[in-house]
Amino acid sequence: MNILAIESSAKAASVALCRDGALMAQYFQASGLTHSRTLLKMAENLLADLELTLRDVDAVAVARGPGSFTGVRIGVAAAKGLCWGGDIPAIGVSTLEAMAWQGQGREDCIICPAMDARRGQIYNARFRFEGEKLLRLTEDRAVSLDELAEEAKKEKNSYFFVGDGAALCYNRFLAEGLPARLAPPPLLLQTAWGVAMAARGRSPQPGDDLTPNYLRLSQAERERLERLKDQA
Amino acid sequence: MNILAIESSAKAASVALCRDGALMAQYFQASGLTHSRTLLKMAENLLADLELTLRDVDAVAVARGPGSFTGVRIGVAAAKGLCWGGDIPAIGVSTLEAMAWQGQGREDCIICPAMDARRGQIYNARFRFEGEKLLRLTEDRAVSLDELAEEAKKEKNSYFFVGDGAALCYNRFLAEGLPARLAPPPLLLQTAWGVAMAARGRSPQPGDDLTPNYLRLSQAERERLERLKDQA
Repeated sequence: MNILAIESSAKAASVALCRDGALMAQYFQASGLTHSRTLLKMAENLLADLELTLRDVDAVAVARGPGSFTGVRIGVAAAKGLCWGGDIPAIGVSTLEAMAWQGQGREDCIICPAMDARRGQIYNARFRFEGEKLLRLTEDRAVSLDELAEEAKKEKNSYFFVGDGAALCYNRFLAEGLPARLAPPPLLLQTAWGVAMAARGRSPQPGDDLTPNYLRLSQAERERLERLKDQA
Repeated sequence: MNILAIESSAKAASVALCRDGALMAQYFQASGLTHSRTLLKMAENLLADLELTLRDVDAVAVARGPGSFTGVRIGVAAAKGLCWGGDIPAIGVSTLEAMAWQGQGREDCIICPAMDARRGQIYNARFRFEGEKLLRLTEDRAVSLDELAEEAKKEKNSYFFVGDGAALCYNRFLAEGLPARLAPPPLLLQTAWGVAMAARGRSPQPGDDLTPNYLRLSQAERERLERLKDQA
């Protein structure tokens, strides 16, 4: 089964082709160019370089959030477009679950993907590996560093942080004397490979049914609600 | 400083652009297509997708061996071509040193890149991280698994294996009761990112001076020498 995976929920963007769980190719960019410019071009080049077309793809997997509102929207829109163009189904996965795969081999740690969600919060969830099996310990959520540190004080195990919020968490944990590890550079940022890993064994759905998961209201929506409240 | 890095010394092929030590983009393939078909196309796409040309590249870094004779030759030839075409200098690095960077963050282990060199041997060297500094413990060499295991018996630390010979070494170490860890999938195979890391701080040289480092004689050369010996 060929899965074309897409990740664009933060500053980096990547696409990957996995065949029956094995990585055939991955194109990754963290160049600062907008994903709307790079993502589909990378997917097109990746398939062409593999001498494949969309007809050879069995499902498109995408990180559907949480993450940057714009990034998530671009990823989901690109996935929908590819599904529609190739008449293939989609698999939407949690960005955080995809990121957790970067911690594979760290059975001794709690795997803690963390994205900087601004406003003093991180998008975050907690996972653990049992051999090659990824177990989820908490749901995707937006929490403060205070809340994360308080929770960790009840744990014996070290935390292994990945993501663009990893350094924030790591420094806070060190300051509190909590055992923590920071993912090294090649594991720090989310990848389409992680998306493909999180998609394995999941049932594809029609691309039309794919929706982003923003987890929090966007700034525009928050401000609208506040205005409505003020008017009430 | 923009470094365009190239890795094609084994079954995977990759190209990366690093700017002042930060990864801007990496294209990676482990598709089974020959590197002579994919490598330059990937480099071309990578630069175009970054909206760069060869004129923006300050040096071409390449894994010059050890490794597959054909793979190393293709990588070094591609690097020479790019240097000539763009009038830019080259930085040749040890494939094994580039691979060792995949072990960053494992300060508690000896980092042991291992490539299957056939004939009962692995291409191998031993490294250790001190913070972000990579220290070399042994020169690049072709050794048997017996020799590697004997050497490890004198060590207290666990070995962290990367490369297409990693599983071979890991299984042998487990069988001997030696402490060992196998790199997880996203760290297992060599990458152009590692090549760029190994190239940092090295002085570029003219592309013309770039030579492969095969470490062992090729099969054709071995057979020729044996014929000459028989004739003598």
